[in-house]
Amino acid sequence: MEKGIEIKLLELKDYIKVMENTKQALDLIYWDKMVMMPKKAVEGRSEVIAHLSEQLFNLQTSPKLKEFIDYFEANFEELDKVNKSMVETLKKEYEETKKIPVSRYKEFVILASKSEVAWEEAKEKNDFLIFKPYLEKIIEFQKEFIGYWGFKHHKYNTLLDKYEKGITVEVLDGVFGELRDALVGLLKKIKKSNLKIDSSVIKAYYPRELQKDLSLFSLDLIGFDMNAGRLDESVHPFTTNFSNKDVRLTTHYYEDELLSALFSTIHEGGHGIYEQGISDELNGTWLAQGASMGVHESQSRFYENIVGRSEEFLSFLFENKIKKSFVNLENLDFETFYKCVNKVEPSLIRTEADELTYSLHVIIRYEIEKAIFNGEVATSDLPRLWNEKYKEYLGIEPTNDSEGILQDMHWSDGSFGYFPSYALGNLYGAQFLNTMKKDIPNYKELLGNGDIKPITKWLKEKIHTHGAVYSPMELLLKVTGEKLNPKYFIDYLEEKYTKLYQV
Amino acid sequence: MEKGIEIKLLELKDYIKVMENTKQALDLIYWDKMVMMPKKAVEGRSEVIAHLSEQLFNLQTSPKLKEFIDYFEANFEELDKVNKSMVETLKKEYEETKKIPVSRYKEFVILASKSEVAWEEAKEKNDFLIFKPYLEKIIEFQKEFIGYWGFKHHKYNTLLDKYEKGITVEVLDGVFGELRDALVGLLKKIKKSNLKIDSSVIKAYYPRELQKDLSLFSLDLIGFDMNAGRLDESVHPFTTNFSNKDVRLTTHYYEDELLSALFSTIHEGGHGIYEQGISDELNGTWLAQGASMGVHESQSRFYENIVGRSEEFLSFLFENKIKKSFVNLENLDFETFYKCVNKVEPSLIRTEADELTYSLHVIIRYEIEKAIFNGEVATSDLPRLWNEKYKEYLGIEPTNDSEGILQDMHWSDGSFGYFPSYALGNLYGAQFLNTMKKDIPNYKELLGNGDIKPITKWLKEKIHTHGAVYSPMELLLKVTGEKLNPKYFIDYLEEKYTKLYQV
Repeated sequence: MEKGIEIKLLELKDYIKVMENTKQALDLIYWDKMVMMPKKAVEGRSEVIAHLSEQLFNLQTSPKLKEFIDYFEANFEELDKVNKSMVETLKKEYEETKKIPVSRYKEFVILASKSEVAWEEAKEKNDFLIFKPYLEKIIEFQKEFIGYWGFKHHKYNTLLDKYEKGITVEVLDGVFGELRDALVGLLKKIKKSNLKIDSSVIKAYYPRELQKDLSLFSLDLIGFDMNAGRLDESVHPFTTNFSNKDVRLTTHYYEDELLSALFSTIHEGGHGIYEQGISDELNGTWLAQGASMGVHESQSRFYENIVGRSEEFLSFLFENKIKKSFVNLENLDFETFYKCVNKVEPSLIRTEADELTYSLHVIIRYEIEKAIFNGEVATSDLPRLWNEKYKEYLGIEPTNDSEGILQDMHWSDGSFGYFPSYALGNLYGAQFLNTMKKDIPNYKELLGNGDIKPITKWLKEKIHTHGAVYSPMELLLKVTGEKLNPKYFIDYLEEKYTKLYQV
Repeated sequence: MEKGIEIKLLELKDYIKVMENTKQALDLIYWDKMVMMPKKAVEGRSEVIAHLSEQLFNLQTSPKLKEFIDYFEANFEELDKVNKSMVETLKKEYEETKKIPVSRYKEFVILASKSEVAWEEAKEKNDFLIFKPYLEKIIEFQKEFIGYWGFKHHKYNTLLDKYEKGITVEVLDGVFGELRDALVGLLKKIKKSNLKIDSSVIKAYYPRELQKDLSLFSLDLIGFDMNAGRLDESVHPFTTNFSNKDVRLTTHYYEDELLSALFSTIHEGGHGIYEQGISDELNGTWLAQGASMGVHESQSRFYENIVGRSEEFLSFLFENKIKKSFVNLENLDFETFYKCVNKVEPSLIRTEADELTYSLHVIIRYEIEKAIFNGEVATSDLPRLWNEKYKEYLGIEPTNDSEGILQDMHWSDGSFGYFPSYALGNLYGAQFLNTMKKDIPNYKELLGNGDIKPITKWLKEKIHTHGAVYSPMELLLKVTGEKLNPKYFIDYLEEKYTKLYQV
């Protein structure tokens, strides 16, 4: 590399360090707000958050950054892969913001915050009409923004690309179509099964402190490093990271229920292990973050479902910890417990769905979002379309909008294109698993011994360490040697659930 | 006020808001470091702290701020009291920094950080000679800084004024001299008492959770608002505030000991109540903070000692909470418990001293600091001087430097002039008490009923609400109608301890 480029790279990295430090401060203050802050501090805290957000925004859209981007675009071929990704990522984020007129963006932010309030009220009062005028305007804004950003083939592609680079309607119609048909078919088979699972046998009182102990035990098993992280509590579980040395998870304990906190913790633990595994060398490149929402979700779901809900791992956890901690389960046989954990039951609420039906909830949202941006559905028709699709794919129908179209907050602030990541995470995860099994032939034995660290090590080397250097599609190809293929997830589900339901 | 001045005031307040938001972020990140941060995150966190510190420093020393200061100095008489104080405070801090050449200041910061390490090593190895060369250089730097800042009568006055505006050697020689003689006399009387207090009767195992419960109970009693604050744990208890709506205390539980955490919590609670009581109207004036270190300490010690260790309040707490929480104390009579809490015993370590002897530790440090800046003592002679004074005032002598001159870290980073605040806090507190008793004649009855909120209300109205609008001396005069007078603290101690020790 030329001397001049090298010096310029160091300058850019210093600049990014300031961005990263500002972001770290902002994320920490936000975490504190969610987890630690006393009630009355809300207002003052918002001012601090606004101040730091503005600083970060200014850094991400400054003429100085533009100069860097232009310089490195002109010298792009001189850069190695990491630096190329760095420049591309900065450019993508710069343009995403800069192409929208500031005045329009400000109007949108104000609308979004009002829209969130309206959505909450609509959900509470169970009345879509309260939310409808806001949703209409939010959609109009998104369409206007797509106008500034440009699009290929489908307007919706631009939104998909924001969350999952390389993912398009063309790709999703294929993979989601295949997945949908397979899931609907599998679900029909299971419905005909003679096996009926009665999960009320594990209903009991599970003290918070013992659940916390189980959560910490499970995190340690899967390889989350408590010297580089924490586990706290919040209403909605989430993960945030300030660096790979400070990754914070939350969970939520319900004392009348054992499974919710356990699997929330393992899910967030998966996000956390991903962040802890990112290479130190990516500090100062803006790439010390997950490759995408979907890849992040692939890791959290890998630990939650593929590991956490597997017969082998669950058996280890049940015999070595759960039975010992909770006296009411002392005499329960594992087979029954395993079935309670993996019971399949079509339900109306996405966040409470089981491993099998979950993706159908996502596919419904994908199909509706696509129809919205293709202009194929009027906002007033959305509840009807929603309910029809639930009926068709899951065989059940919402009796009101709160348990239907109003259940998720994502559309209230314009996060269209986000939902598909959740199901893509499932697909990526199973595809990774298929390759991992070749590298780690005793994979199931490890699960059965509760020895998850070799699995975590594999994921770290193949995925985590690279941060956001590779796009999701590049990473998938690099790790598995193959493009996105829904077959692996379908096979995984078929194998697990036909065995479980003896169908 | 002229229109031009009003507009300029609004501009200044916007500027201060940015300073305040930056400081709030910085303080929060620092609190998190002390209380929440996982071990491995130290390095990355230091970078974030350095980044925000630099931003705050730049804001506090900018040409823009200088312009504001100059403008308002030229229009000083147009301003009301709050705005006058605001301008004076900004100017004082601006000049404190700006008068020192940047290169010298940077050298000092580097020296101070090395010096802290040397002090730690010296203390651990019990060897003053390891610390001595650093201490010498630190003192030289302080003298050089006094050269830049200027001084009146005594060089040491400049350092005293940094922490306690208006306090001088002339003032302290008088009040500390009077206090010292009274304390030494009182201590002699107590030594002759026939009463020997055996505090081993309360030695027992005190579970952490029950101590925490007692701490929270006590904080609620004295009026600390948990909706605008928190109580957590850290090695050394401290208080920090991000705003009057978010004040965070820490304490430290020792399970073989009951009193340490209880009185630490009440002490920090006092600091916290002060911060919670500052008027909302002082946001954006840089005055939403305590009037001084000494006034802060007056509030923490008021709650810890004057309230917390009083016969009346302690009796309430003992009968209504302590006896019920800790079975080993169930059959203990209150009189014995009260004596254990208030046992007087000259000791070598300041932070472990009882209410009576505490100020003597501080006065010794004051006298030594004064001698240092008067050039009356060589650094190599400091241990000897220290030990002589302990012998003379407290009747005991350190057997090594770790329990003598090396015990406090304050000198290692050049915080000369800070110590007197601790004893001044005692003096202010008793002087406030004297006035309060006139306003609240049933003061002792309230204590006995555990009804502290009227007392907190009085302190809030008279002291807390004003933040840093008044200097300590102004505040004392405003509240008590009198200048600083050590008589009130001496009388308070005489009354309490001659009764307790029947002398």
